[in-house]
Amino acid sequence: MTSSTPDSTRPLEGLRVIDLTRALAGPYGTLLLAGLGAQVIKVEDPRGGDLARDNSPYVGRDGVVVEKRHDDDISISHLTRARGKYGVTLNLKDPGAGEVFADLVRNADIVMENFTAGTADRLGVGYAAARAVNPGIVYCSLSGFGADATDGGKAMDVIIQALSGAMYTSGEPGHPPVRIGVPIADMLAPVFAVIGILAAIEQRHRTGEGQHVDVSMLGALTSFVAIENWAAMASAGMEARTGLTVQRLSPFGVFQCADGYVAIVAVHEKLAQGLFRAMRQPELGDEPRFATRDARVANAEMLEATINAWSRTLPTAEVVALLEAEGVPVAPVRHPEEALVDPRVVARGETVAVAHPSYPSEVKLRSVGVPIKFSAAHTGFDDIMPIAIGEHNASIYRDILGYSEERIAALHRTGTI
Amino acid sequence: MTSSTPDSTRPLEGLRVIDLTRALAGPYGTLLLAGLGAQVIKVEDPRGGDLARDNSPYVGRDGVVVEKRHDDDISISHLTRARGKYGVTLNLKDPGAGEVFADLVRNADIVMENFTAGTADRLGVGYAAARAVNPGIVYCSLSGFGADATDGGKAMDVIIQALSGAMYTSGEPGHPPVRIGVPIADMLAPVFAVIGILAAIEQRHRTGEGQHVDVSMLGALTSFVAIENWAAMASAGMEARTGLTVQRLSPFGVFQCADGYVAIVAVHEKLAQGLFRAMRQPELGDEPRFATRDARVANAEMLEATINAWSRTLPTAEVVALLEAEGVPVAPVRHPEEALVDPRVVARGETVAVAHPSYPSEVKLRSVGVPIKFSAAHTGFDDIMPIAIGEHNASIYRDILGYSEERIAALHRTGTI
Repeated sequence: MTSSTPDSTRPLEGLRVIDLTRALAGPYGTLLLAGLGAQVIKVEDPRGGDLARDNSPYVGRDGVVVEKRHDDDISISHLTRARGKYGVTLNLKDPGAGEVFADLVRNADIVMENFTAGTADRLGVGYAAARAVNPGIVYCSLSGFGADATDGGKAMDVIIQALSGAMYTSGEPGHPPVRIGVPIADMLAPVFAVIGILAAIEQRHRTGEGQHVDVSMLGALTSFVAIENWAAMASAGMEARTGLTVQRLSPFGVFQCADGYVAIVAVHEKLAQGLFRAMRQPELGDEPRFATRDARVANAEMLEATINAWSRTLPTAEVVALLEAEGVPVAPVRHPEEALVDPRVVARGETVAVAHPSYPSEVKLRSVGVPIKFSAAHTGFDDIMPIAIGEHNASIYRDILGYSEERIAALHRTGTI
Repeated sequence: MTSSTPDSTRPLEGLRVIDLTRALAGPYGTLLLAGLGAQVIKVEDPRGGDLARDNSPYVGRDGVVVEKRHDDDISISHLTRARGKYGVTLNLKDPGAGEVFADLVRNADIVMENFTAGTADRLGVGYAAARAVNPGIVYCSLSGFGADATDGGKAMDVIIQALSGAMYTSGEPGHPPVRIGVPIADMLAPVFAVIGILAAIEQRHRTGEGQHVDVSMLGALTSFVAIENWAAMASAGMEARTGLTVQRLSPFGVFQCADGYVAIVAVHEKLAQGLFRAMRQPELGDEPRFATRDARVANAEMLEATINAWSRTLPTAEVVALLEAEGVPVAPVRHPEEALVDPRVVARGETVAVAHPSYPSEVKLRSVGVPIKFSAAHTGFDDIMPIAIGEHNASIYRDILGYSEERIAALHRTGTI
């Protein structure tokens, strides 16, 4: 095998994943499994591989570029999502694919796929086929609306955001809904898929049997939305969407500075008084309209205007410093580039540096890490990835499945791998 | 014990969790563990319990009310977050608490807490104390900035949203950032905590040892934000924030209808032509400004205006039907109340009904479920919860720890429990 280092201090050491996923949601799930120490074998179509390989921008010998210029330019999407994974080819539509798939499954603990519901079964690589050769297999399907959906349309992130209610809850009252800039529908479902996989692995310790784990993007995001008591709030006359601030907790929310925005939380008495001191207007705390929590809520609009009139004259850093000095929870609204290099986040590996394996880039790229720290284990990504399609065909098919050189060559000739 | 039904077909059957968490983030994590079949014992301060018990609105004999009217009115926050958990009291500041905590940990697999960083250790209920009595314990700390943070300020959801960059990425270019209406910072960290706990349990199968699992709200959300290649996009001249639409994929995003909004994705040639047919303007596909993908991106603003001019004259349902007939991905932007009762989501238990144990409510309450389906296991919540503080003191302290009635009575008298 290549540079993967066996390490008993990785939580999922010893578990092998056959990864049939493409695009974002599925590959992010198997990325987490790899980061936790599982061996992930990414299976790509020999006729082009994962579509994410063609996502702009790319990185290569000319640095970051919008259009691919050289054969060894790599899509940053692929670079970040395929980290720590082995890559083999297998054309699932080829008549010889079933046997190779069966051999992979026989030697694995987990399969994950994110085809449109029903497709994996049609291709002969669904749970039934996997279980037939390995009853211990934990097989995870990730789809838009569930593995049992009959109207399995394309489930892009923005479609799921719209259906889930998440989009409606964001934004100003009376204004349009807001598309959340982070693809949370794509990202959340695989996180639950990983939970489902690990829970099924735990159950397998008791029963010896694997099972099918089925996660829906719509279900995952809608379940998050369901943490708020929407029906109760509506019946109590509370707004579902309150914009930058929440007036029933006033002062609470986002306020304007001269050069940006800050989030401020001063719901309780002590904090509100601290805010007024920071504003150099401690007398506000004695005014009947702002003197009690109920009064501040009743006069929230006036209070927010008063705060904004103060904060928008000052730089963000100064507003933050003044409020911190009074112990009032405050934070600047940061640009993602700044957030990704927060020293705390960097130190904990919650974001990690990524780079083209051959060409340094002037643009420092950071990407998603594993946001979990273990006292007796470590997380992170082995220095391995399928740069070329089928990069690890020889090592996986030979070393793990025991295929002969002749057989591997024959599978290449027939276009099976 | 009470009505909990032992069931070998729940993934985490047999695992016991000592739950020191309060408010939202921690209790949501242990809720997921309970939904997956772990036995969760919620530990509350006898002098008032979880603060979420005082969150408005409440439900009780008068239905849903904003202010608590009767002793048996229950905060809907508590009703939804304490489902499926046992409840005991323990005053962690009492001199006798350490011994009781040690006995709980000795009989458990998992401890979870979400105090401000450092507090659990100061109270004598940190990882070191837990490990001393049970080296197999998996101990999870959930905090704003990590268990090692020295500036462990209050980490409310809105503060973390601001710091993570998530807020910045949402909204229209040149406009203020957007507070995401769902408390994603509070919700995401516990999901990673559950992954960390299950991964540590898996490692324990190999090593026999537990460990400390440490998840930060800032790290969890920032890692999500890091899936987009912000630095690369910036260097390639791509905007971090593009509002309701993404013009480099045009037509892509949210469009206005007469009575609401729809999300439409028609990036590829076939879909764009389908959209133009649905608009009853198939000739747009022949116009040079919209005829190719590059042309549509170059003229995105004009294209979006053309689509909006059509869609805003029609009801949402009609726009959805017309586009569906042409196979173009489309979805209405739904209100959360509508999203939570989507028959697909209801059937899969991704949202579930909740109710006051004694009083039916005219307002039908739905809350977060477990968004994972297993073929050989089931998820969901036992019909048990700590309505009163210390509701299950007798059964837990007697049946699990083996305390005598006299000892339990004495612990009550000293205010320890």
